Amino acid sequence: MPDKSASPIRPTDAQARVLARSLIETATFGALGVIDPATAAPMVTRIAIARDDAGEPLTLISSLSLHTRALQANPVCSLLVGEPLDKGDPLTHPRLTLQCRAQFVARPGTTHDTLRARYLAQQPKARLYIDFGDFSLVRLTITDAHLNGGFGKAYRLTPADIRRP
Amino acid sequence: MPDKSASPIRPTDAQARVLARSLIETATFGALGVIDPATAAPMVTRIAIARDDAGEPLTLISSLSLHTRALQANPVCSLLVGEPLDKGDPLTHPRLTLQCRAQFVARPGTTHDTLRARYLAQQPKARLYIDFGDFSLVRLTITDAHLNGGFGKAYRLTPADIRRP
Repeated sequence: MPDKSASPIRPTDAQARVLARSLIETATFGALGVIDPATAAPMVTRIAIARDDAGEPLTLISSLSLHTRALQANPVCSLLVGEPLDKGDPLTHPRLTLQCRAQFVARPGTTHDTLRARYLAQQPKARLYIDFGDFSLVRLTITDAHLNGGFGKAYRLTPADIRRP
Repeated sequence: MPDKSASPIRPTDAQARVLARSLIETATFGALGVIDPATAAPMVTRIAIARDDAGEPLTLISSLSLHTRALQANPVCSLLVGEPLDKGDPLTHPRLTLQCRAQFVARPGTTHDTLRARYLAQQPKARLYIDFGDFSLVRLTITDAHLNGGFGKAYRLTPADIRRP
């Protein structure tokens, strides 16, 4: 039985920082948690992910979706990245829980143009719908992070810990 | 451009019910959304999934984890199942957002014994830690559901819609 007097959180080291960064850099999708404005319950949906110019998560979402309406009401959200792509034990696969604040990118504008190009470079299939009127680019600015590198390998990371080098 | 006057939600049909049921039955893990009691923010983490005797999601979580402490404070949660296991476009892969209420299974007790056996039959590797004092079996009773069968294929389902036949 584990020693419950000990914190399960390990001291952050270079390996944890590199792993967290790589989970963000390689994500093509993630699980977004928002607060449902109708019920105040958490709600988890799938979104596509790219990186903005600072290496923070960038997504493209439709106003027809539940998560977009939720983020318009409350920008506080959470993003889980690090998806097991094989059939091994999913709990041994590293994953990263990011606590974020959503920022809708205004358009038209030069920032939108830049981020649109960045997004399409990473998610080329989005060209089919990125210019639809109901779609918005949204930056997910990281405020806190929890890395789980597998059983017993938990770390708490700051935004600075997982900044691009 | 889509017609914004139309609801994006399609009428529930037999195919949607079967798809939703199959996403629950085949899930070995999912993304759990809880409310972080310290910040009131949503928080998404990965959990392992099995089915209880009624076909509802059953998980095994440690009190050392963030989600367990959150569910002890507030049992309202959300579970995303339907994971893409290949490298295709993740947004075309069907997924199901379940709104749930978490119920910790008391132990010892005959209900615990039954659910422990069911869980191990579906997650045999959990035998290594299921009897640790910090682990709890938790039923996730479904209260509402949103099925996304791919772009433009959204459904709102009731618990009765996705009950085991």
